[in-house]
Amino acid sequence: METFFNPSSVAVIGASNTFLNLAATICNLLKHNNYHGRVYAVNRKGEAVHGCPGYTSVLDIPDTVDLAVILLSAQHVPQIVRDCGEKGIKNIIIESAGFSEAGGDGHRLQAEMEGYLTRYGMRLLGPNCLGTLNTHNGFCCFYGFIPEKYGEGFVAPGTISYIIQSGGIGVLVLDSFTRDVCKVNKMVSIGNKSDIDEADLIEYFDSDNTEVIGMYLENVRNGSKLMDAAMKTRKPILAFKVGRTSEGSKAAMSHTAGMANNDVIFESACRQAGIIRLKSISELHSMPKIFTTMPLLRGNRIAVVTNSGAFGGIAADLLVEAGLEMAVLSEETQAKLAKTGQLFNAKNPVDLGPAMAKQMFLDIFEILLSADEVDGLLPVPNVWQDVVLEAIIELVKMCRHYEKPAALYIPNAIEKILHIRSKYQIPVFESPEEATRALAVSHQQHNYLLKKERHAYERNNIKGNGKEAESAVGV
Amino acid sequence: METFFNPSSVAVIGASNTFLNLAATICNLLKHNNYHGRVYAVNRKGEAVHGCPGYTSVLDIPDTVDLAVILLSAQHVPQIVRDCGEKGIKNIIIESAGFSEAGGDGHRLQAEMEGYLTRYGMRLLGPNCLGTLNTHNGFCCFYGFIPEKYGEGFVAPGTISYIIQSGGIGVLVLDSFTRDVCKVNKMVSIGNKSDIDEADLIEYFDSDNTEVIGMYLENVRNGSKLMDAAMKTRKPILAFKVGRTSEGSKAAMSHTAGMANNDVIFESACRQAGIIRLKSISELHSMPKIFTTMPLLRGNRIAVVTNSGAFGGIAADLLVEAGLEMAVLSEETQAKLAKTGQLFNAKNPVDLGPAMAKQMFLDIFEILLSADEVDGLLPVPNVWQDVVLEAIIELVKMCRHYEKPAALYIPNAIEKILHIRSKYQIPVFESPEEATRALAVSHQQHNYLLKKERHAYERNNIKGNGKEAESAVGV
Repeated sequence: METFFNPSSVAVIGASNTFLNLAATICNLLKHNNYHGRVYAVNRKGEAVHGCPGYTSVLDIPDTVDLAVILLSAQHVPQIVRDCGEKGIKNIIIESAGFSEAGGDGHRLQAEMEGYLTRYGMRLLGPNCLGTLNTHNGFCCFYGFIPEKYGEGFVAPGTISYIIQSGGIGVLVLDSFTRDVCKVNKMVSIGNKSDIDEADLIEYFDSDNTEVIGMYLENVRNGSKLMDAAMKTRKPILAFKVGRTSEGSKAAMSHTAGMANNDVIFESACRQAGIIRLKSISELHSMPKIFTTMPLLRGNRIAVVTNSGAFGGIAADLLVEAGLEMAVLSEETQAKLAKTGQLFNAKNPVDLGPAMAKQMFLDIFEILLSADEVDGLLPVPNVWQDVVLEAIIELVKMCRHYEKPAALYIPNAIEKILHIRSKYQIPVFESPEEATRALAVSHQQHNYLLKKERHAYERNNIKGNGKEAESAVGV
Repeated sequence: METFFNPSSVAVIGASNTFLNLAATICNLLKHNNYHGRVYAVNRKGEAVHGCPGYTSVLDIPDTVDLAVILLSAQHVPQIVRDCGEKGIKNIIIESAGFSEAGGDGHRLQAEMEGYLTRYGMRLLGPNCLGTLNTHNGFCCFYGFIPEKYGEGFVAPGTISYIIQSGGIGVLVLDSFTRDVCKVNKMVSIGNKSDIDEADLIEYFDSDNTEVIGMYLENVRNGSKLMDAAMKTRKPILAFKVGRTSEGSKAAMSHTAGMANNDVIFESACRQAGIIRLKSISELHSMPKIFTTMPLLRGNRIAVVTNSGAFGGIAADLLVEAGLEMAVLSEETQAKLAKTGQLFNAKNPVDLGPAMAKQMFLDIFEILLSADEVDGLLPVPNVWQDVVLEAIIELVKMCRHYEKPAALYIPNAIEKILHIRSKYQIPVFESPEEATRALAVSHQQHNYLLKKERHAYERNNIKGNGKEAESAVGV
């Protein structure tokens, strides 16, 4: 699978100098992104494209080819796939549409192409997809993608890998990361997934430098394969699936040739296999940072820290509605808090009032993180003064030290939040709902891993009481 | 009530040149905002503040005073209120905290002050509040507020009026509007509302140039008064209330001296009185534009228009989950749509595929808006080309012509959405969830007005069947 993301040599089949040729944008992109592999263009005239040497057939390329990227009209594809087989190419991405999702003749073309794949033992990504992106080596075969349209950081290297069944969603996710503290590792658009599917890719991302796996799915063809793959990894898997309603399911069918899936079955599969089901597309890019920047939430008792009275109540409502609890602070903790300065409220929510001293923030964070009755923090500080931001930068380090997470929200217009987040590189969420949800999702992952360890322990030691397993989890 | 927002002369009591004097920020603000009324400062030394003439007592001001704004420590307030009464001032804003919300001595001070109010027949806003803001005449007595911190458009005049029980939320709302298509008319922070409450203000906003009323509440003291006021207006009332859970309710109590309210009762009051209950703080600024820029949604059948296949399914799921329906397009409508160009899908969701001609967008919008089986639109267009934005500008006009709303979402990173929205002044929502919710909220308001008209009709004409009433609603 590694070759799909890190090929030494690529043939872009269909790339020419014709006006608006989509495959040519791939050649352009590979040059632009500083990809260091060899790139060949294949077209009728055998002409070079954006500096990539051109040939009339892959069979003429005087080099081994690791990966073929095919983007030309569907009726020519089966023949090209055969050529690739003859050339000894083992990995193929078909980006063209017009196969089973289009109905009619598409089914025949799909069957013919699949015949060649079997005959030559080739692996296929697609058809009807955008292919792959690897931010670490500059490899990207997303067609129609114009890097100049996006700011720096759009494809900055990171550790979140995405499996997506829609190119549009992929671009939206990448674009949303430009102003965030975590970035994308690899992204793969699976389209009709006639061979490689989400399960194969979960297995692969379990083995590489990925920290969090995100998925956008329109259908699931092989549920038990997906569950098996998901259950083998300890990495968080975050999935958004279209088709929660029959109307949504029908709409998705026309997009990527899926079957209408029963959502109840998917939901139960997620629960069993520890897949965290996302509630909105925006959670695809907003949730990963709770995993990449913070320890898991090991209990459900949260302390809210704010200097904006209103947000104490708002946060309390949200935490309870998300299945978490407002931590009940001990007398001892309250006494320690009261000593830090003039607090409005030393109970949870802890309300600092107008106090703006950095040390006071730090003391409060430390008292709460070290309190046995607190499992995590939901700080909602106004950041009128820079000292508060400095305290937040320290808080992120403290969270790692105490192995308890904090989900931050700063009550400001969204533009200012984005500005602060990227300038100070602190994991701020965009709404109190998002911050609360991040805590819930972190706790869900912790509980899943705990259950997993317990099962493993029980299998190995029937008489064990699970206590040891419990203590082994949560890092 | 008008005087609270449009006084000819104001005394700011407590404003001095002492370092960090909060009341002085109000004098500064009134000068900065081009407020044309007369402003007097009252302090111990009788010194002028930011160019406002100073006096040691309101009784010394050689002018009538329409409004007194009081911001000094609570123990001095009752005496000052008596002076105001003697001076003949009928309208008072007390911004100081330390009254009943603080407990202890605060209760006594509150009672003493209330005694003077009754004796002199004065109306009071507060205590423990920020006062009022009127974007149309530059009047604003929010203390601590530094206009230079915010961009232009922060207090640009608009038509949405807010009643808020937290200054922080007020600033957040104002700041969020800087990049939106609608703006604030008036804002009032009600604090402990020992006299004037949300009901009085709803009544006032029903009579002024307000189009939409937004509320942030931490408690409701007089539920039936609120319901009566709400039922008298046809303007949409959008309310967010803290304290949906007992934990949230407890946290809010420490903030603005409220009682824990039973949320079930509030919920039922909202339903009866046509108050639209908001699900998040961000809806306070995101929802009004569906009312200010679009006609009400009179039925629940929505057509989705997209050129991003994924969003067809996403929108369909969201609409159904919000209690709306995917419109079933007639054969005739589908035939008309098919004639506009190379569509991916002429059924609902209508998928334009990669087509980018302005006329094609316009034709599709017009066909759908004029179709009997469609009540409103949820367009999710990619705006790679400017022509799409031009078509959207036309769409807004078409919606008014056909008296059907469209809730727009553009699949882009949030920063780009904000940029497009403010540059082109089109009512774009920030997520597909928000756009769907706006349609649901619009339909809720329509249904409430319809029910209201029906009741009125039935009262006037027992034998009426309500048909005529139905046709009278919905503009």
